[in-house]
Amino acid sequence: MATSGKVIRCRAAVAWAAGKSLSVEEIEVAPPKAHEVRVKIVATGICRTDDHVLVGTFPDVEFPVIPGHEGAGIVESIGEGVTSVKPGNQQCLSLTEPQNLLPDKTSRFTCKGKQIHHFLWNSTFAEYTVVPEYTLAKIDAAAPLDKVCLLACGFPTGYGAAINTAKVKPGSTCAVFGLGGVGLSVVMGCKAAGASRIIAIDINKDKFARAKEMGATECINPQDFKKPIQQVLTEMTGHGVDYSFEAAGTADTLIAALASCNMNTGVCVLAGEPPAGSTIPIDPFLLLSGRTCKGTLLGGWKMRDSIPRLVASYLEKKFNSDLLITHTLPFAKINEGFELLRAGKSIRSVLLF
Amino acid sequence: MATSGKVIRCRAAVAWAAGKSLSVEEIEVAPPKAHEVRVKIVATGICRTDDHVLVGTFPDVEFPVIPGHEGAGIVESIGEGVTSVKPGNQQCLSLTEPQNLLPDKTSRFTCKGKQIHHFLWNSTFAEYTVVPEYTLAKIDAAAPLDKVCLLACGFPTGYGAAINTAKVKPGSTCAVFGLGGVGLSVVMGCKAAGASRIIAIDINKDKFARAKEMGATECINPQDFKKPIQQVLTEMTGHGVDYSFEAAGTADTLIAALASCNMNTGVCVLAGEPPAGSTIPIDPFLLLSGRTCKGTLLGGWKMRDSIPRLVASYLEKKFNSDLLITHTLPFAKINEGFELLRAGKSIRSVLLF
Ligand SMILES: NC(=O)c1ccc[n+]([C@@H]2O[C@H](COP(=O)([O-])OP(=O)(O)OC[C@H]3O[C@@H](n4cnc5c(N)ncnc54)[C@H](O)[C@@H]3O)[C@@H](O)[C@H]2O)c1
Ligand SMILES: NC(=O)c1ccc[n+]([C@@H]2O[C@H](COP(=O)([O-])OP(=O)(O)OC[C@H]3O[C@@H](n4cnc5c(N)ncnc54)[C@H](O)[C@@H]3O)[C@@H](O)[C@H]2O)c1
Repeated sequence: MATSGKVIRCRAAVAWAAGKSLSVEEIEVAPPKAHEVRVKIVATGICRTDDHVLVGTFPDVEFPVIPGHEGAGIVESIGEGVTSVKPGNQQCLSLTEPQNLLPDKTSRFTCKGKQIHHFLWNSTFAEYTVVPEYTLAKIDAAAPLDKVCLLACGFPTGYGAAINTAKVKPGSTCAVFGLGGVGLSVVMGCKAAGASRIIAIDINKDKFARAKEMGATECINPQDFKKPIQQVLTEMTGHGVDYSFEAAGTADTLIAALASCNMNTGVCVLAGEPPAGSTIPIDPFLLLSGRTCKGTLLGGWKMRDSIPRLVASYLEKKFNSDLLITHTLPFAKINEGFELLRAGKSIRSVLLF
Repeated sequence: MATSGKVIRCRAAVAWAAGKSLSVEEIEVAPPKAHEVRVKIVATGICRTDDHVLVGTFPDVEFPVIPGHEGAGIVESIGEGVTSVKPGNQQCLSLTEPQNLLPDKTSRFTCKGKQIHHFLWNSTFAEYTVVPEYTLAKIDAAAPLDKVCLLACGFPTGYGAAINTAKVKPGSTCAVFGLGGVGLSVVMGCKAAGASRIIAIDINKDKFARAKEMGATECINPQDFKKPIQQVLTEMTGHGVDYSFEAAGTADTLIAALASCNMNTGVCVLAGEPPAGSTIPIDPFLLLSGRTCKGTLLGGWKMRDSIPRLVASYLEKKFNSDLLITHTLPFAKINEGFELLRAGKSIRSVLLF
């Protein structure tokens, strides 16, 4: 614990360039500067957003970079002026600004003599990372880090999309497009909000059993129909659903989700991230009749305040985000984790250091 | 008043084909069938939506057709089973379904032996029209029909976009794109809702004096800037406006309006009608950060209930929709009214029969 001031050598998964797999390397992590905290990451989930980074979807993310943003850890050391945490407290990292460097525009990571970029002020694919103090949320010491790491991104995004962004009303009808970690968390949020009908949609039917376990009342595969899925949903529900959620990350599913909700009062929430640079060709008359389309970033929580409360709710078993964890792997198998995600075989893989 | 059962010969403005001017013709108006009402139109406004019909913007509108939907009149005769109105009551017509024929799929209009289509169950560019009973709203007998005709469409659309759809909060900052009848009514709605800053935007600076009269605190012309107008507005306000309104009817202004509102909490309301068949290429990241985009049809009022209440508010001088009326013309000069609209010289022309 007395490592403050020293450079730490440890493992991290580095993305050297877009389109390449991660390589697990030994890196150096500089000590935290003023208002920064060095955190020992204990567990981290793999989110589709990390895969988007590897593919090169985000033009603003500079390489080389250490991705990862769904991690939980413990404070290792603190920089000058840090008052809210001290070494030894359990922590959960909160995603904040889409920043590639720390607030002073420098990096604390080097590898083979090269500066490596941070990601979202998180970079949880490293055994040790440095983050600004104000991105850290203290959580209950009893929280299992290998489980609550999901409360840093995937779960709150989907759950919050239903609870905070759409504000789903009891008795309503919902449609959820895409049943990855985000979409399944939307399903849980809709159920918690008292929706009476939750229609889960995915082109991979292997996702259906888990969706039902989480509260989906019906599961449908667009490929089983000749008609467009929006027409299927409108016919299933009479006037379209009350709330639709896009969590697949494609332009087509966003248009389908918007068209699937009631033309007068329907609310469509965009949670998925279509490829950056792509535009969604929206027919203005879909909106003009009265529909609402809104996006959600991390489910609309005030993250620093909300994460500790979400962790408390988890410990009180108010929801079961563990259902999202399909695989737990040692950190060295990180690329296997990404393969599982790409093959549609995992919901969330949690990596343990 | 005892004309029930008889065909009435009267004047109407017929659009024979897309792209042609209206021609004022003598037409025959059949008596109302069951649950229909024949109305003598006293005054009607000219709305941009009527011009869209003439241009051929709406693929669903069949020709020949009698446009017009911002009219006020008195009940001339009633069909079987009509209970809510009787001949002699003053009336204001309420726009309802985008229908080209009456509910029984036939027309009551003929001209030169040809069947002429209805428009929006209104067709107020005729001295007499026939509408379904449930589209009619009874209004105060003291209401001046040459003024309150605007309460059937343009005014409630814009005013309601601010009050009902956006639910503008006191002290907020608003931007209004397009200062026609709809946009100026948005300005009035924002002011009535207590907005502290109302930025009015138009490429025609002749609209600015009237916009200020109605409550705009600043007026800007996008053509006066080298930067995109969304950047100008973001710089003027620091983080973007709280509410933005599209009332110009173009794809570009919708994208600019969406980008002009605050990325986390901004609400953008689409009131204008971009050309049908056009799609709006929306960058999903504009929405993902937290913006809301919603459309409004007629300002989100429950029209049949709301029109009488709006008329009562007008009579109590709660708002001054008369400010929208720039020209009053005899019905025979209808094409002149359209010329004034296209030249950007009128806000609303009211035609008197
Ligand atoms: N808004 C935010 O703050 C936020 C946070 C985290 C993740 N995300 C984004 O949310 C999206 C989902 O993330 P995830 O981790 O759940 O991803 P994921 O890849 O695990 O899940 C996506 C699911 O969508 C399904 N799918 C793909 N195409 C489909 C189609 N045409 N119709 C129906 N289903 C289809 C896939 O089979 C898969 O089950 C990603 O785009 C991710 O980048 C957004
Ligand atoms: N949603 C509804 O229920 C509803 C009801 C009525 C009308 N409308 C639609 O609302 C729109 C406005 O109607 P109106 O009667 O006020 O029309 P209008 O033509 O009188 O006004 C449009 C204004 O937009 C301005 N404008 C055009 N391009 C612009 C640009 N690039 N930037 C800024 N300003 C620009 C014009 O100069 C004009 O002042 C139309 O598209 C109409 O069809 C919708």
